[in-house]
Amino acid sequence: MADVTLVTGAAGFAGSHLLDLLRDGPGEVVAWHRPGGAPASVGGVQWEAIDLLDASAVRDAIARRRPTAVYHCAGAAHVGRSWDNTAFTFAINVRGTHHLLDALERAGVTARVLIPGSALIYAPADRALVETDPLKPASPYGLSKLAQEMLGWRAGRRIRTLIARAFNHFGPRQDPMFVASGFARRIADIERGFWAPEISVGNLEARRDLTDVRDTVRAYRLILERGEPGRPYNVCTGRAVAIRDLLDMLIARARVPLTVIVDPKRYRPNDAPLLLGDPARLRDDLGWSPRIPIEQTLDDLLAYWRARPA
Amino acid sequence: MADVTLVTGAAGFAGSHLLDLLRDGPGEVVAWHRPGGAPASVGGVQWEAIDLLDASAVRDAIARRRPTAVYHCAGAAHVGRSWDNTAFTFAINVRGTHHLLDALERAGVTARVLIPGSALIYAPADRALVETDPLKPASPYGLSKLAQEMLGWRAGRRIRTLIARAFNHFGPRQDPMFVASGFARRIADIERGFWAPEISVGNLEARRDLTDVRDTVRAYRLILERGEPGRPYNVCTGRAVAIRDLLDMLIARARVPLTVIVDPKRYRPNDAPLLLGDPARLRDDLGWSPRIPIEQTLDDLLAYWRARPA
Repeated sequence: MADVTLVTGAAGFAGSHLLDLLRDGPGEVVAWHRPGGAPASVGGVQWEAIDLLDASAVRDAIARRRPTAVYHCAGAAHVGRSWDNTAFTFAINVRGTHHLLDALERAGVTARVLIPGSALIYAPADRALVETDPLKPASPYGLSKLAQEMLGWRAGRRIRTLIARAFNHFGPRQDPMFVASGFARRIADIERGFWAPEISVGNLEARRDLTDVRDTVRAYRLILERGEPGRPYNVCTGRAVAIRDLLDMLIARARVPLTVIVDPKRYRPNDAPLLLGDPARLRDDLGWSPRIPIEQTLDDLLAYWRARPA
Repeated sequence: MADVTLVTGAAGFAGSHLLDLLRDGPGEVVAWHRPGGAPASVGGVQWEAIDLLDASAVRDAIARRRPTAVYHCAGAAHVGRSWDNTAFTFAINVRGTHHLLDALERAGVTARVLIPGSALIYAPADRALVETDPLKPASPYGLSKLAQEMLGWRAGRRIRTLIARAFNHFGPRQDPMFVASGFARRIADIERGFWAPEISVGNLEARRDLTDVRDTVRAYRLILERGEPGRPYNVCTGRAVAIRDLLDMLIARARVPLTVIVDPKRYRPNDAPLLLGDPARLRDDLGWSPRIPIEQTLDDLLAYWRARPA
């Protein structure tokens, strides 16, 4: 029987890019998406609609497919939204992960499972964060991501849990709730004449370590295949970009002149001024480094929104 | 219709002591216990077997009783055990709390809800912790208790969430997994001749702020009735006792001579050397101070285990 690779959240942002990476590889790829949600149009994979909150559906699907590699990309991903969807964030990120790990254990498969953790479990710092830095999640989202790691540590004997700690990543297909994607969509809509040529912005001073999502998922594959179980790996570039500079770079790419309006109501009080990671472990242990420059990502992101039907 | 007070986890440690405090008061008291678990034999209350993980059972019971005061004492309470029962700890503490708050909101009742939070959400410190100190939960248990507080912050408009942050509390009826109760039970069993007169112990140097559970639940009632919603209150004495001194005080009360055997295997590596709280807010805002001296608690704890059928 061919090896089966499972991607949960496969219609989501990181999940869909992971499928692009995996679908031409060896073995079968099974892609789970939320029931009701439409799967991304990616061929070469077998789609299944599975509700991670339905323990018996997860158990049945795992028993049937018996995956030996699992990328668990499903979950609530937005820190700001987690304050409004607190219970759902805990449910899908924590209970959903438990159902998945438990199903793998019950099926008796030997599997490597990638947990895409988050930089938002670290205590804020004014320098690049390393994997041994103190953990101090400060939002329902951050709490749920640390809980996910803890569930991974406790998984059954046959389960090898690999932990990626992703910093901000961006690129085509990202939900416009996230800042770069939201700016890019706005610019594309302004170019089409749907809006006055104005962009309303919040905190432009915050600096973030931004990785192209395609580099991020390449790191996920490397970590799943060759990482050390239980050892977390930061996935980041080691460089921070101010949101202001990101916006300037997008505006420079716009086909019409734009005005920026600063709106204090859009400030999020919990926004840390800096979220920067040190990628040394991933680079030194597994040879990863980011390949796609920010300019390319921004071009691709704008092209994505320009190509979308309005 | 008389006011209804609900106690969840009413057959548990804090819950059962809370019933002692509430059952002679005005209004009805409804006591929830786990289905299958036997309720403590406390009269003057109406017992119901409700599974907090069963959302519709919780909804139905709340819609029927419409409590205006809720003490949410149910939940996984042991930090060490939470490393083995990680998924259950998150489920009962986080999802259970969500079901309860959601049911109250749907029922449209105006209620004050006490969340008995935990000192284990604070970052460890070498001094007394105050409520504004940094939060840094480091175990599934700690994470689940902070998640509980976060759910409380997000509860519906009619729900007033009161937050107690309990430090260690002890007394009769406590599970012997907890150190003082475990020592006391062992001594009672040795006195009956069930064991050789030896006590095996782990980390005796750790110091803890120990409150008699009856003082703790008195604080819960005060906070529920007169506390400020959303404002956390430490429930503690402000004094730390070394586990060694606690053990010495128990041994001094034993009716037979005992030998102490130090067993390094019983050390828990995550044990913080000090867990001490500052009770100033609870004292200054609400006039609470602990009444029961540690000697009394230890006498009562030993009497409890001596009276239990072996």
